[in-house]
Amino acid sequence: MILTVTLNPAVDVTYDVGRLRPGTTHRVTAVTERAGGKGLNVARVLHQLGRPVTVTGLVGGRTGGEIRAELAEAGITEAFVRLQEGASRRTVTVLDEAGATLLNEPGPRVSASEWERAQRTLVRLAGQSDLIVLSGSLPPGVPATAYADLSRLAGADRCLVDTSGAGLVAAAEAGVGLLTPNAEELIEATGLTDVVAAARAMLERGAGGVVVTLGEDGMLAVTLAGSWRARLPERLEGNPTGAGDAAAAALASGLAAGDPWPALLREAVAWSAAAVPVPYAGEVDLPTLARIRDLVVVDESEE
Amino acid sequence: MILTVTLNPAVDVTYDVGRLRPGTTHRVTAVTERAGGKGLNVARVLHQLGRPVTVTGLVGGRTGGEIRAELAEAGITEAFVRLQEGASRRTVTVLDEAGATLLNEPGPRVSASEWERAQRTLVRLAGQSDLIVLSGSLPPGVPATAYADLSRLAGADRCLVDTSGAGLVAAAEAGVGLLTPNAEELIEATGLTDVVAAARAMLERGAGGVVVTLGEDGMLAVTLAGSWRARLPERLEGNPTGAGDAAAAALASGLAAGDPWPALLREAVAWSAAAVPVPYAGEVDLPTLARIRDLVVVDESEE
Repeated sequence: MILTVTLNPAVDVTYDVGRLRPGTTHRVTAVTERAGGKGLNVARVLHQLGRPVTVTGLVGGRTGGEIRAELAEAGITEAFVRLQEGASRRTVTVLDEAGATLLNEPGPRVSASEWERAQRTLVRLAGQSDLIVLSGSLPPGVPATAYADLSRLAGADRCLVDTSGAGLVAAAEAGVGLLTPNAEELIEATGLTDVVAAARAMLERGAGGVVVTLGEDGMLAVTLAGSWRARLPERLEGNPTGAGDAAAAALASGLAAGDPWPALLREAVAWSAAAVPVPYAGEVDLPTLARIRDLVVVDESEE
Repeated sequence: MILTVTLNPAVDVTYDVGRLRPGTTHRVTAVTERAGGKGLNVARVLHQLGRPVTVTGLVGGRTGGEIRAELAEAGITEAFVRLQEGASRRTVTVLDEAGATLLNEPGPRVSASEWERAQRTLVRLAGQSDLIVLSGSLPPGVPATAYADLSRLAGADRCLVDTSGAGLVAAAEAGVGLLTPNAEELIEATGLTDVVAAARAMLERGAGGVVVTLGEDGMLAVTLAGSWRARLPERLEGNPTGAGDAAAAALASGLAAGDPWPALLREAVAWSAAAVPVPYAGEVDLPTLARIRDLVVVDESEE
């Protein structure tokens, strides 16, 4: 079983307006709502592809109830820790003719005892899990090193961490099995300008491997076992939101099954690309996945 | 007992952001939520001033539950009709250094049978009410003449209607006891340019009286019993949102008690002005009210 951890899930609300003009009143013409958060999206893709998955993290209030109800309806097992006071956040995306404007609530303040309870829950669930995915933003009150701390408690080599900044370095130092930053996050966290050198720096700090997403240039894996590059030699039209979560789902699934690196990276590129034709995160297009899987080019790298 | 009718209540969400820039991502620094809708605000003011009041209208979904819970916590009696499918709307106000940007959801679609049920509920509650206040926007699926239709069912002379456009004219034709448009709404609905002439046109169509809010120039009452003007000879600093709802509360309270017009209009101006120092709608500042009540100047008008 794969466990995904989402400490700051959200109800993602999307508003369509003709044109967003600051300082004026707008009639919203369409409203959609969906439970969001990286870990939820990873879990949705795993569930879609038939992998056993459980979702945990922190939820609270009516918005927390909405998130749990949506997962239940999708048939995804959840074991969220319920906050005593705070309510899970909302994000509002305003779509107008010029593009998207995002308003992200910070999330509920988590008390020390709630954070304590979350850690105990994770340890209990980790005992039943083959692999643990930790990803997404942190709510107020949770330490910036939360993913490193949780990884140590859960068994770091079984952890896949998708984060940025100081949390990325801390996760490497905790000895997590895999980090999945994008190139920009990796460069920012290490202060280095070369992606390969930056990935190697993470291995030196303790990470078992780094998969760097390079956008349309595919992915680079730098691991203790070797380095590989993989890419799809065609470009798919659509929405890249959620491609990273689909890649994390593929990597978690392959790591849990003990697949070798070339196969792991092939699947990560294929699932990621197959998420692009779907207009929202947390789902891949199955016919696309079937079509492109064998088109992915994987090369061992001398780096 | 006074009954207020809110057919399209909302959860009003306010976001603070540093500066709203369309097309970018914003971290919301503060979030507040409050049940909103004109009828709810009228009821809150009546409740604050010790007048027995019941709230009715249409609510649905989790947002509807939030609205009902907030009223229960405030100790305000509610008898909302529950929607089978739709959820009550939200409004989002984005406050930044330049001002307020409003995003108003349209509200749930109301089915013919739900609207039928709302009308039956109103008739039942109207039998126990001295005065009925109908105000605020209408959700999709409810006819534009909803307030006129409900007034006819409830006994039009006991109804105070705060609306605009075709609904204002229809309410006059239904013979409602009092209309409370602002000058702009009255002029727009009648096509006339003189406020007094426009108010008289409403009496000719069947309304028992019209109280026109003139902003800082106070209020004008044009009724079958005569005409009066009232104003406060000082200006209060604050937020005029909710001043109109406080005026409607004063008028409803006075009409239910059978107060004479000069006293009615004095109270309407005083409650309205006393709402200005309070930063949100649905409450008056009691010390201000006590101080200004006798300062209001009321003149019988020859108009």
